[in-house]
Amino acid sequence: MQSVSIFDSTLRDGAQGKGISYSVEDMLAIVRILDELGVGVIEAGNPGTNPKDAAFFTAVRSMKLKHAEIAAFGSTCRKDVAAQESPALRALLDCGTELCVVFGKCWRFHVDHVLETTEEENLRMIRESVRFLREQGRRVIFDAEHFFDGFQDDREFAMRAVNAAVEGGAERICLCDTNGGTFVDDAKRIVRYAVSHLSVPVAVHFHDDCGMAVANSVAGVLAGATQVQGTLLGFGERCGNANLSAIIPDLQLKRGIACIPQESMGHLTRYAREVASVANIQVPSGAPYVGSHAFTHKAGMHADGVIKTTRSFEHVDPFLVGNRRRFPTSEISGKAVVFARVQQFLPELELHSAESARILDEIKRLELLGYQFEGADASFELLVRRMLGRLREHFELLYYKISSEAGAAETAGASAIVKVRVGGEIQLMAAEGNGPVNALDLALRKALTVFYPVMNRIKLTDYKVRVLDGGSATASRVRVLITSTDGEDAFTTVGVSDDVVDASFIALQDSVEYLLLKKGDERTVLEGEIENAAE
Amino acid sequence: MQSVSIFDSTLRDGAQGKGISYSVEDMLAIVRILDELGVGVIEAGNPGTNPKDAAFFTAVRSMKLKHAEIAAFGSTCRKDVAAQESPALRALLDCGTELCVVFGKCWRFHVDHVLETTEEENLRMIRESVRFLREQGRRVIFDAEHFFDGFQDDREFAMRAVNAAVEGGAERICLCDTNGGTFVDDAKRIVRYAVSHLSVPVAVHFHDDCGMAVANSVAGVLAGATQVQGTLLGFGERCGNANLSAIIPDLQLKRGIACIPQESMGHLTRYAREVASVANIQVPSGAPYVGSHAFTHKAGMHADGVIKTTRSFEHVDPFLVGNRRRFPTSEISGKAVVFARVQQFLPELELHSAESARILDEIKRLELLGYQFEGADASFELLVRRMLGRLREHFELLYYKISSEAGAAETAGASAIVKVRVGGEIQLMAAEGNGPVNALDLALRKALTVFYPVMNRIKLTDYKVRVLDGGSATASRVRVLITSTDGEDAFTTVGVSDDVVDASFIALQDSVEYLLLKKGDERTVLEGEIENAAE
Repeated sequence: MQSVSIFDSTLRDGAQGKGISYSVEDMLAIVRILDELGVGVIEAGNPGTNPKDAAFFTAVRSMKLKHAEIAAFGSTCRKDVAAQESPALRALLDCGTELCVVFGKCWRFHVDHVLETTEEENLRMIRESVRFLREQGRRVIFDAEHFFDGFQDDREFAMRAVNAAVEGGAERICLCDTNGGTFVDDAKRIVRYAVSHLSVPVAVHFHDDCGMAVANSVAGVLAGATQVQGTLLGFGERCGNANLSAIIPDLQLKRGIACIPQESMGHLTRYAREVASVANIQVPSGAPYVGSHAFTHKAGMHADGVIKTTRSFEHVDPFLVGNRRRFPTSEISGKAVVFARVQQFLPELELHSAESARILDEIKRLELLGYQFEGADASFELLVRRMLGRLREHFELLYYKISSEAGAAETAGASAIVKVRVGGEIQLMAAEGNGPVNALDLALRKALTVFYPVMNRIKLTDYKVRVLDGGSATASRVRVLITSTDGEDAFTTVGVSDDVVDASFIALQDSVEYLLLKKGDERTVLEGEIENAAE
Repeated sequence: MQSVSIFDSTLRDGAQGKGISYSVEDMLAIVRILDELGVGVIEAGNPGTNPKDAAFFTAVRSMKLKHAEIAAFGSTCRKDVAAQESPALRALLDCGTELCVVFGKCWRFHVDHVLETTEEENLRMIRESVRFLREQGRRVIFDAEHFFDGFQDDREFAMRAVNAAVEGGAERICLCDTNGGTFVDDAKRIVRYAVSHLSVPVAVHFHDDCGMAVANSVAGVLAGATQVQGTLLGFGERCGNANLSAIIPDLQLKRGIACIPQESMGHLTRYAREVASVANIQVPSGAPYVGSHAFTHKAGMHADGVIKTTRSFEHVDPFLVGNRRRFPTSEISGKAVVFARVQQFLPELELHSAESARILDEIKRLELLGYQFEGADASFELLVRRMLGRLREHFELLYYKISSEAGAAETAGASAIVKVRVGGEIQLMAAEGNGPVNALDLALRKALTVFYPVMNRIKLTDYKVRVLDGGSATASRVRVLITSTDGEDAFTTVGVSDDVVDASFIALQDSVEYLLLKKGDERTVLEGEIENAAE
């Protein structure tokens, strides 16, 4: 089987993406995930410019990796500086990695106007920098910055630059589309030329400024490149790097070119989400293969087709990448989809019944208010059960009150009072917290734990706030999604309100009600109740 | 100049995207934006399946459009149903558009396993449906569903299907990659074949399931297609449709193929944001051409290069698409970038000064806490001015208190008390609102309006909440961004806290302080102060 090496730059070029900032622990966690996934090379940042990177290289040395090797990234020596005097190359050596990635200029325009030096000096910088690292026992990949622009501007100039790296002893030349401006036809033609004219293997590195980074990378491999640089989620400078979570299954599942171990492919979606979680972003819902919406059939006719035969509207089986098929409830997917979802927990419901129609109407009404049940399975189930009288409510909220204060002087912070009724018993509980939402959460759980010991097991793991109509600013409608777990299953609930505190509380109430529905509702009998019963 | 027709399906296929749901007013607003932009065709939804679409078609008839024509989308007649008896075709006619888009099957597998009918019947459905609409005076585009899969499975079968539409009188055949599984090389080859074998013009319609929708569309045009279907922001079923906000500048700016009027191109970014705003989503920051990060140079070396000569790290000038160049403040972009930003409001600051270094350190410290100044220019300026003693604070917050209650019984809702000092005067003000954040906002502004009449002009236009570490759930750190305007300029402020109410209040305080800094701080002298002065 043909194969290609996957080179991930999530820690280096990825750190140049919008809103991305890693701690050293984050970087080590990402190395662990990418190594599990089975990528060949993990590149980390420029040790000369960031003290965090130096701490990372020290820490990563003691990690045992199964698949990946770590590469350190840096520039050639500067003009008019000998390689052995270069602080940049010294910093690279200090990283202690066997593999180094060195970037240099291949576009005459850059040599003239950014470096402001001669071609001869540029060639010397490349050749001597690579040679110096080789003499120190390192292996070198040369990142040919702006190779595609440079090639189109002056082919021989660009080829002389990469050949200087080959002469210095580079084991591989990576053709970089640094500005992201290259189209597929040019990418293919230029990679093919480089592959046939260079004596070492070729890699490709594309950016997404024209929306073509994935297509260019795949075309590059089909034209003979044997390594693809990118980032697992497409993080990167400006519009981002080539998205490896699309390229890997494109090549491996659809062209039979091995990128990662077959057993990792079935967990690709999970690995992608883990990296996103460390980087503290969401995987875009529409991301190819790994997005939560990638196999969601929202159009009624598509859903019907997939229910008949999955191949009808799916180019690959979501199972192969560890994702799953979804049928969201929405105005477009109609009754059949909602019905299929309800049947998962109420198999006795009939499609052509008044109940089915009522459920659909109520969902449409709530969606107009800003509710969204696509990601909130637990609230969906509670809603349907309530409508059909199939839910025994475990508690009744009588009221809550919150108060909070802050200012220059020392203050009491936030507190909440929650009053609930369970059976004939009333419980009033107060709690303090980090802000009123947290105080409410703690007070509600404290109040219910008195009755239901299982409440001790609930843990909220994610909290998301989405402002629905930013135009009305602080009076905006907000949707809150809360994900909870009892240590075994995770479930998500939703609340919508003009008030972020209230929306949060609605979702909180659903989360504890759902836990009680699913995880047993064995009740502690209180002393007062025994006395009452005895009377 | 070669040209291509842009066909936007934001209202139809776009409505199948995750979290997308339009009101009739939203749909009309999007038509207005797309028409301004200058697209050729705007497709709207399936009138048979959604009552909203019918209301839309009635309303849109009275709109005067400058560039676009409206097309209605629907299916052929069903099997064993005559075209003139088809409810789907009747619904299409009821839309009252001159142009209709009709989709039908071109893949043998679908005819066998989804339609479960014969090839002859499928051809009849296509031919008769198109002919019936033509007889009723309509023009027809035939959407050849799964054309690329069908072509690769059985070329002649697929070609017979589209030729049935031509025989019926279709003016154009749109080749659809319905499952999004086609690669660029195949796309190009198949489009070229269809263009040379069909007697009518060809359009293309791609989905992004392999991450190649943009590249495929561009390749399709270069292979002879004269219309591109897509959605302005790539909304659409599963991974989305081809993203027109990338395809349009790709073709027009980089290949000289006219798509929209040249004068609209300079506002592409604004149009994209307007559509996103109506759809209530954010334009992805890394979106090619129109994303807020598309021309952001985060890497220090890139920023240095662009400062020397913009072409060095930009494939097109952001001005051409109405976007702008940005140098964010972050740990990677170093001192030079922060300094360039500070100089915009404090030109006398020197790069190599203790002040510059202190500012950079403070920004790094705050970024570690979760602050982000990339999008929050106003808070950035206030921060720097405060550090350098260059800000006269217009008020001092003494404290705030909020309380809120909700429950089964009628309740008082949310209220807030804010106590501020301005000069020697203390003002205590209370307000009620939709939740505590809104109440705080109103109370603060009421308190300050007493002193500063300009406060009447501030209006908050956007409110965003981002949970930073969802893992600690309701105790998570949150970042709030608030955008305000005084009717002339818009400015954004940021607040971070464990408490969403507190984070909001921090951003609110900055927004009013910034308004007072920029928009004059003429103070009303209070009666009490005059008396004090007279004593």
